[in-house]
Amino acid sequence: METRKVLLSEDEMPRQWYNILADIKMNPPLGPDGNPVGPEALAPVFPMNLIEQEVSTDRWIDIPEEVLSVYTIWRPSPLVRACSLERALETPAKIYYKNESLSPPGSHKPNTAVPQAYYNKAFGIERITTETGAGQWGSALAFACSQFGIECKIFMVRISYDQKPYRKSMMQAWGGKCIASPSTETKAGRDILEKYPDTPGSLGISISEAIEAAVSDESGKTRYSLGSVLNHVMLHQTIIGLEAKKQFKKIGEYPDIIIGCAGGGSNFSGMAFPFVYDKINGKEIEIYPVEPVACPTMTRAPFVYDYGDTAAYTPLLPMYSLGHSFVPPPVHAGGLRYHGMAPTISQLITEGILEPKAVTQLAAFEAGVTVTRTEGIIPAPETNHALAIVIEEANKAKETGEEKVIFFNMSGHGLIDLVSYDKYFSGDLRNYDLSDEELIEAEKVFENYPKPQLLKSR
Amino acid sequence: METRKVLLSEDEMPRQWYNILADIKMNPPLGPDGNPVGPEALAPVFPMNLIEQEVSTDRWIDIPEEVLSVYTIWRPSPLVRACSLERALETPAKIYYKNESLSPPGSHKPNTAVPQAYYNKAFGIERITTETGAGQWGSALAFACSQFGIECKIFMVRISYDQKPYRKSMMQAWGGKCIASPSTETKAGRDILEKYPDTPGSLGISISEAIEAAVSDESGKTRYSLGSVLNHVMLHQTIIGLEAKKQFKKIGEYPDIIIGCAGGGSNFSGMAFPFVYDKINGKEIEIYPVEPVACPTMTRAPFVYDYGDTAAYTPLLPMYSLGHSFVPPPVHAGGLRYHGMAPTISQLITEGILEPKAVTQLAAFEAGVTVTRTEGIIPAPETNHALAIVIEEANKAKETGEEKVIFFNMSGHGLIDLVSYDKYFSGDLRNYDLSDEELIEAEKVFENYPKPQLLKSR
Repeated sequence: METRKVLLSEDEMPRQWYNILADIKMNPPLGPDGNPVGPEALAPVFPMNLIEQEVSTDRWIDIPEEVLSVYTIWRPSPLVRACSLERALETPAKIYYKNESLSPPGSHKPNTAVPQAYYNKAFGIERITTETGAGQWGSALAFACSQFGIECKIFMVRISYDQKPYRKSMMQAWGGKCIASPSTETKAGRDILEKYPDTPGSLGISISEAIEAAVSDESGKTRYSLGSVLNHVMLHQTIIGLEAKKQFKKIGEYPDIIIGCAGGGSNFSGMAFPFVYDKINGKEIEIYPVEPVACPTMTRAPFVYDYGDTAAYTPLLPMYSLGHSFVPPPVHAGGLRYHGMAPTISQLITEGILEPKAVTQLAAFEAGVTVTRTEGIIPAPETNHALAIVIEEANKAKETGEEKVIFFNMSGHGLIDLVSYDKYFSGDLRNYDLSDEELIEAEKVFENYPKPQLLKSR
Repeated sequence: METRKVLLSEDEMPRQWYNILADIKMNPPLGPDGNPVGPEALAPVFPMNLIEQEVSTDRWIDIPEEVLSVYTIWRPSPLVRACSLERALETPAKIYYKNESLSPPGSHKPNTAVPQAYYNKAFGIERITTETGAGQWGSALAFACSQFGIECKIFMVRISYDQKPYRKSMMQAWGGKCIASPSTETKAGRDILEKYPDTPGSLGISISEAIEAAVSDESGKTRYSLGSVLNHVMLHQTIIGLEAKKQFKKIGEYPDIIIGCAGGGSNFSGMAFPFVYDKINGKEIEIYPVEPVACPTMTRAPFVYDYGDTAAYTPLLPMYSLGHSFVPPPVHAGGLRYHGMAPTISQLITEGILEPKAVTQLAAFEAGVTVTRTEGIIPAPETNHALAIVIEEANKAKETGEEKVIFFNMSGHGLIDLVSYDKYFSGDLRNYDLSDEELIEAEKVFENYPKPQLLKSR
């Protein structure tokens, strides 16, 4: 019998998250005046205990008991040897993955939704607002809020709200309130609806509505929550990589190549940062964040200061950006359609520690189907992007005969995204390419902003 | 930190299934002439190695290595302490469940789909046909066939095919071919379509088509597969209860009450039969199979000989039956809408070893939402029926102050059935009650068939 899974008991689950801010230098976020933004400026939006995590440079941060207790609903997640995939590819490479699709909402997102709900509750907050595009984040936050008895209101991009009714149903099952955005509940929403009554909505609009709904609650008991990009989100996700390190140690292995898809960057960071720590300290590892060719933030955009949202409500963040008003083509990986990239990941790319790759939509789905019919799991469209590079690297190893250890993150399952698989099989999916002119036009938005410094952490 | 899960390593997975036919007396299946049917009569429908399992009275049957290897994709499944549910109910009862929702298709069905695909492959079969109603079984068989490189053709009841497109997509993702039934591919299908071009289809029609498609393939390389009712299906599912026994032993517990939903009976048997063995040998346990009030096979129908399918293609089986032409009301638990019940379960009910219960649709969903918002998992509508009795028993324990150990099976998740939750929340779900007259009318179909004997196993 083949052994596939390396398990950890609940007792072996890590008790601290790893904070990469202890080990890299970062450009500070800036206000509209070009000066660094202090923590207090964020107080109307986030609870202070999360803001403290956002700016902390402590290397290790304790995971609260209450968060660990909820984590045990699905954690520790197994480290899986993809032996069926290896066999199908006839590769000498050993392929391992963390299976983050086993959480109730089906992705890695609850790793940060749960502590965010906990810290809000601990700070006395009674209601959290957020936005969601494809719905993975909104459903994860609804799940997390149900665990701590907090209300959850989710502004969902209207076109997704209409096209993905199951996501809305999931949020409702956990007691969350999901609203099509733009809505009439906020000034931002009403303004847009007045101008464009038939707008399909956008993530930018939804963020504006969610922030407005939070800061305009006069009781002071409402805050906003974000599922990616920010430092504290990356911090919470490191539970993935920290578990994986323990699991690799159990079997006496260590990855040569680490691969994850990256939209805002949360699942990638969570898996990779604990290994980045080793790379910073001299270990030889190749680490690849993977994005769609249709939204080439890391592979074709510059490292700049830009806003995290379309409405320019956030501070200016130092990151790779296609421009905050860029609207990516409609690829079926909603989680990867983001104009920017987490500042921490961006910093590591500037230093050459991470080497980004880009994959076309059709190559991603081809890889996803190969994995479905070998490993048995139907991966999320986002995850498929990582899989295309995994298979590419496994094929390289076959050519060279090297027994490379490849490690990737199965960031989520695709059961709620099966429509995109249908389209792939019926030939209705296509690739999108972007001209240099399109990108230059989109990037004009930040040409007069301050420029980040090129820092060297080591 | 709360400990929730009792894990087994892959090495600890049971190496044999438990066959209850070693421990109970059964009436034989009969042919249309009223005489017992021999194994050879089934040879055109099933491969001989599975027929041998169907009639075996060996207590323990080895699980092939190849099946164990595929089981490790999701097995062993965790035994979970439902501590959040216990707390919400303020019960002194300890509630445990096997989480069978973690398989790639999201239910317990692969426990038998995988060995069935394996044995067909070992017998030289290249193509398997089956029917599916709600789609859990069809998707599990497509998954299993993809693991062994066998073609899979699924006749899906037309109304479900139209209403549940995600299920069809799942089968396709695993390479299965899903066809709306009745179809023009079989004589049975064409005959029905000629008479009733707009028919929504039925499980009975789909079974007829699937059997015909198997036996009419002149190459002899096609067989039919059934996902419930038969002895070998119950056998394969016992991996659930056998794992659970090991897990309870690890924590020094043993269940006082065992609860599972039962349509054809496969998830219930799988969980319960290894414990039934103990009960037969003197252990005091209450064991409750739970069905919908709208399809009261065990609680209101007689123990008779009847056909397993509407078209009367199967042998006459000794079981509780509402009549093989009975069409249950459209409750949102497709897996529980079956007119009969597995002969093994039926036999154990006649002997008083199992005590069936019935639950209304609304009570089932109320319980499902309670579990969703405590344990975090959104259960399948079928599973919700078991949960209603779990909560009832936990509340009884609260009244009496007894620390009962309650064990149930989380037979599947409800992510593909979220429409039914939407209807529950919007008030569009209702209960169905059946009059005595309706049942008497339906049961006329078997009044002239032979009658089974009342046997006593102990």
